[in-house]
Amino acid sequence: MHVFVPKSPPEEVVARLERILGKENLTIEGGPPPETTVLVDGRPSRETLASLPQIEAVIVPFAGVPVETLETVRAQGGIALYNLHHNAAATAEKAIELLLAVAKGTVKNDARLRQNDWGGRYESATGVSISGRSALILGYGRIGARVAAVLAAMGATVRATKRIARSAFDGEVEIYSPTALANLLPKSQIVIVCAPLTAATEGLLGPREIGMLPGDAILVNVARGKIVDEEAVFHALRDGKIRGAGLDVWWQYGRSGEDRTPPSRFDFASLENVVMSPHCGGSTMDSEALRWQALADLLERIAAGKADPIDLEAGY
Amino acid sequence: MHVFVPKSPPEEVVARLERILGKENLTIEGGPPPETTVLVDGRPSRETLASLPQIEAVIVPFAGVPVETLETVRAQGGIALYNLHHNAAATAEKAIELLLAVAKGTVKNDARLRQNDWGGRYESATGVSISGRSALILGYGRIGARVAAVLAAMGATVRATKRIARSAFDGEVEIYSPTALANLLPKSQIVIVCAPLTAATEGLLGPREIGMLPGDAILVNVARGKIVDEEAVFHALRDGKIRGAGLDVWWQYGRSGEDRTPPSRFDFASLENVVMSPHCGGSTMDSEALRWQALADLLERIAAGKADPIDLEAGY
Repeated sequence: MHVFVPKSPPEEVVARLERILGKENLTIEGGPPPETTVLVDGRPSRETLASLPQIEAVIVPFAGVPVETLETVRAQGGIALYNLHHNAAATAEKAIELLLAVAKGTVKNDARLRQNDWGGRYESATGVSISGRSALILGYGRIGARVAAVLAAMGATVRATKRIARSAFDGEVEIYSPTALANLLPKSQIVIVCAPLTAATEGLLGPREIGMLPGDAILVNVARGKIVDEEAVFHALRDGKIRGAGLDVWWQYGRSGEDRTPPSRFDFASLENVVMSPHCGGSTMDSEALRWQALADLLERIAAGKADPIDLEAGY
Repeated sequence: MHVFVPKSPPEEVVARLERILGKENLTIEGGPPPETTVLVDGRPSRETLASLPQIEAVIVPFAGVPVETLETVRAQGGIALYNLHHNAAATAEKAIELLLAVAKGTVKNDARLRQNDWGGRYESATGVSISGRSALILGYGRIGARVAAVLAAMGATVRATKRIARSAFDGEVEIYSPTALANLLPKSQIVIVCAPLTAATEGLLGPREIGMLPGDAILVNVARGKIVDEEAVFHALRDGKIRGAGLDVWWQYGRSGEDRTPPSRFDFASLENVVMSPHCGGSTMDSEALRWQALADLLERIAAGKADPIDLEAGY
């Protein structure tokens, strides 16, 4: 086993990797040597993979495998694909952050009180309780399960959909097959998208599904923009067909801090009932340390023959 | 038992109260008749209490008994004092909302992305994870216990102080006496004030205590402003001695939506590391219904001799 890591880890991580692999089986930075069996690369090209005769595994060093990576790895054949879930906790927290910001009107309350405007206290209450409401988590993986546990602790009734459900309950959470979606949406006042973007989930919440939501629904997406139909959710928000949305993921991206690409073809910035977040869910001050730790943990499991690769058909 | 309710409840609540008390034992609106034994009033005057020869109980129809009410009831003597906890869930959600808004920079991220500014994605991460951090809940009553459960579900280590602790643990939460405060503060990255305002808690977090907090501490107050020293917390925030604060309660209040009284003598609105909320924690679209339900539940328990009155010495 020879591992190529494209970026230099902190000292203590290098020391740990050398202990796991042996110093001679680790290449850091530069390019992958021909003896590479495990390549750490989120978006490897076909050429790179083809140039590595002994390649056995690719590790995507973040959550959510890009569709192109999946296709490249599938096309090459005989390669195990892994990814990291080091930021599941942070992403779940982002979902709760956005849900509460929409439900409670955080942004508006803050702006008003900064002007000594106490309206948010004396006008009739517009805030929504999470306690007593029914929540639906789309995608019950590492992120979804964390979101569900927090919502249950807040007193919500929590349901979730999961492709392969081993049982009908996980603690207090009712688990359903994705085929139950049409039955679940009309009774879900909170919908949180935590599913991976795959052929099966692209456009999962289309005009029909969004039209099934109750009028007081709050939609949160911390997964990938394309799982939700851009036009349908914009119109539902603009026309007050749902109460609001908290969006960390988008349909268009600025590629740097200077790139002023808007997040959508539609003018979400004109809407008061949306809370906008620049796809920073998984990224906190702790993420890089957690990412290296998760990479070392995974390499240890791969070395021990105990790691679970991604299902290349399902895509996660 | 004759109950006076100052405001007209919804029909179904009236029906329930009449079932519990008997129609002849309920007076709604106007003023309390001389036969009143149970008075629903958050701030009864000495004159009112003195004018009711058969008065046995006062119900404050919200959480957090005003100090004046406590004194009035104590002075009269022989009266049991009760209050309602119908909005404990909403107040706990407010604490989590403000904590996450400070930890993740919700307000700033939203404002920037509305200008197509993706800086929050590409600049080095400033967001803080709750998972893995140590949280301290001051006041482990109905609100504090809910906050603790949510923080534990997020993966924080949770400690709490409680005046009368029956054991050292409640599930995963470590319970301490308030005398442990000086030991707990230096290791608490998250501090959430949920205690009632009493003689013992006024100024509980003074300059000395705030000075003990670690530099990455986030302080949240959903209880009463006066529990935290106004000047000390302002200076700590302004000088970056702590990371930030989420405040729903203040030292000064506008008495209506038009009254532009600032929330403090200090210019909190000039600070970027504070999220400001106009004391609307417990107030949601559901609160009034929950309040009436809690009042009816309490009257049922009083009628059955099963209600727990407030400790008039402790004040809650």
